[in-house]
Amino acid sequence: MTTTAHAFAAPSVDAPFAPFSFKRRDLLADDVAIDILFCGVCHSDLHTARGEWGSVNYPCVPGHEIVGRVSAVGSDVTKFAVGDLAGVGCMVDSCGHCPSCTDGEEQYCETTGFVGTYDAPDTRSGGYTFGGYSDHIVVKQDFVLKVGHDEADLAAVAPLLCAGITTYSPLHHWKVGPGQKVGVVGLGGLGHMGVKIAKAMGADVYVFSTSPNKREDAKRLGATDLIVSKDEAAMADHANSFDFILNTVAASHDLDPFLNLLKRDGTMTLVGVPETPHPSPSVGAMVFKRRSIAGSLIGGIRETQEMLDFCVKHGLTADIEMIDIQNIDTAYDRMVKSDVKYRFVIDMESLKAA
Amino acid sequence: MTTTAHAFAAPSVDAPFAPFSFKRRDLLADDVAIDILFCGVCHSDLHTARGEWGSVNYPCVPGHEIVGRVSAVGSDVTKFAVGDLAGVGCMVDSCGHCPSCTDGEEQYCETTGFVGTYDAPDTRSGGYTFGGYSDHIVVKQDFVLKVGHDEADLAAVAPLLCAGITTYSPLHHWKVGPGQKVGVVGLGGLGHMGVKIAKAMGADVYVFSTSPNKREDAKRLGATDLIVSKDEAAMADHANSFDFILNTVAASHDLDPFLNLLKRDGTMTLVGVPETPHPSPSVGAMVFKRRSIAGSLIGGIRETQEMLDFCVKHGLTADIEMIDIQNIDTAYDRMVKSDVKYRFVIDMESLKAA
Repeated sequence: MTTTAHAFAAPSVDAPFAPFSFKRRDLLADDVAIDILFCGVCHSDLHTARGEWGSVNYPCVPGHEIVGRVSAVGSDVTKFAVGDLAGVGCMVDSCGHCPSCTDGEEQYCETTGFVGTYDAPDTRSGGYTFGGYSDHIVVKQDFVLKVGHDEADLAAVAPLLCAGITTYSPLHHWKVGPGQKVGVVGLGGLGHMGVKIAKAMGADVYVFSTSPNKREDAKRLGATDLIVSKDEAAMADHANSFDFILNTVAASHDLDPFLNLLKRDGTMTLVGVPETPHPSPSVGAMVFKRRSIAGSLIGGIRETQEMLDFCVKHGLTADIEMIDIQNIDTAYDRMVKSDVKYRFVIDMESLKAA
Repeated sequence: MTTTAHAFAAPSVDAPFAPFSFKRRDLLADDVAIDILFCGVCHSDLHTARGEWGSVNYPCVPGHEIVGRVSAVGSDVTKFAVGDLAGVGCMVDSCGHCPSCTDGEEQYCETTGFVGTYDAPDTRSGGYTFGGYSDHIVVKQDFVLKVGHDEADLAAVAPLLCAGITTYSPLHHWKVGPGQKVGVVGLGGLGHMGVKIAKAMGADVYVFSTSPNKREDAKRLGATDLIVSKDEAAMADHANSFDFILNTVAASHDLDPFLNLLKRDGTMTLVGVPETPHPSPSVGAMVFKRRSIAGSLIGGIRETQEMLDFCVKHGLTADIEMIDIQNIDTAYDRMVKSDVKYRFVIDMESLKAA
């Protein structure tokens, strides 16, 4: 039998969030039902709910940084048992048979594209998907992650499911490790995880920011220093010295000052897609040092599990500010102003008061 | 004692080439003197001679696709003997001790930059360097290449020293090999070598060109087919299918149609630097397939030798049109119109008639 989910939804492109109930599907044989304890608030939630990324199915229930406890499992589920802690990230399904899916890189699924955790055509039950701003969720076991952190840390684990994997994946793919000098452009929800993870991987980490007043925080998070990206002399001091730069800034900006900090054969990887194009990067800066510019999108399920296990091993979680779901509109307004250190997480207990 | 070299030089930014004599230095202990038999004509020669790349030392003797025969060696020379066939490419010296030089990637020399074969400050004898449009040259043995081709092929070997290594190096660095689908954008001096080399490496090669009438030639050179880059339907047929694309076009153009042809994790490498920037490439096209855009500059000396040996093994030379040095201005005018298949090579015997 289907279950009724209680949630908060954006009713339309410009209306505030409001309580919303809907049906979650009956458990299929390989489905896992999860009572959601915490859900992180990602910029993608805001862009989607406010219609900034194009047409949206309303009511829209965002949320793809989900942690909770397994409440039921389908008859064929072998990976999870009732009572287990579990996580769900940006994806709940993919075709499963294209080269990217068989390589465990479901985020690059080449046939249908991956099924997003919210506002995506639901391949299992029709309609479209509803995300984590809700009391429970039903997800195919192959897209559910095991959470090995202490229960006391659960809220701060939630952002790992998107901000964590989005930064871990490129750092891991481009083989960041001890002895390397790594830059992280932007110190927000993604950037602060990038610093923690790169540091835990053994790199010497520098933050690039327009705000010198983030220096102490950058150091607290594990950076050797913060370099003010508008300070040309400070930037020049680091010319040709970085092995890898993780650029988390989605706003359109000049890539060349960062490109010029890469060593020969260095790579700068972009994880944000700007609304208006960046100024065209210098081809000379690439040719004369064999540098690369690349992009990266979240990470695959296998790699997300690896990231969570890595974070357990190194004691990593996100720096969060907990909110009640009733305050989600205010949280969005503060996110627009970058007024959060570094991720809002919804305490789903607050939903019961709705 | 110094020797008098007979050459053709650009006397100024807008005057035609004219005979010019100058002194080559006395052989230092590790120097090799080479009687030049043939010299390829590169677009860089034209850009430099005509002052299109900024300030030039005139008279300017271009030419960095040099093959000839060793006529004398310094007292410490061990790698060459009088009578050997030898080649000289784009570089005649570098610092020798920076990370790039010690890695054998002298083209990326990080202290002084490499010393160009022409119009560069001469680190060994003062003044500036004079290139291969001359009857002989004196070069440090570490920057001289061994030529193993048959003597009958020598003229067609000359372009390997720049066009060959500029295309071999990225194909080799990004590990092109059997089972891969490789694109070459532009079928000129560089592109035609890129096709031959990628094919010899075992790849399935496609040429991208705006000219459908180059199809038969592309196939003759080893390509499976030519794809007309303006034909959107033809391009769409190859979406997401290329492992690697070598882009040899220096003119400003839209990179996105090619970027979209790369598979997940594919790389497009640019070897030309546009005078005005390319339109800014799509970050989404990079992020959603983890694609990369990179640059590459000629190749190191060790790799240039490897390339020459590879070309001997696979019977590769350039497709050339031989000219007398007296016709160099006309050749430049034809190059501007891409009217050459695919490289002019100067028969240095013609210099004797000057």
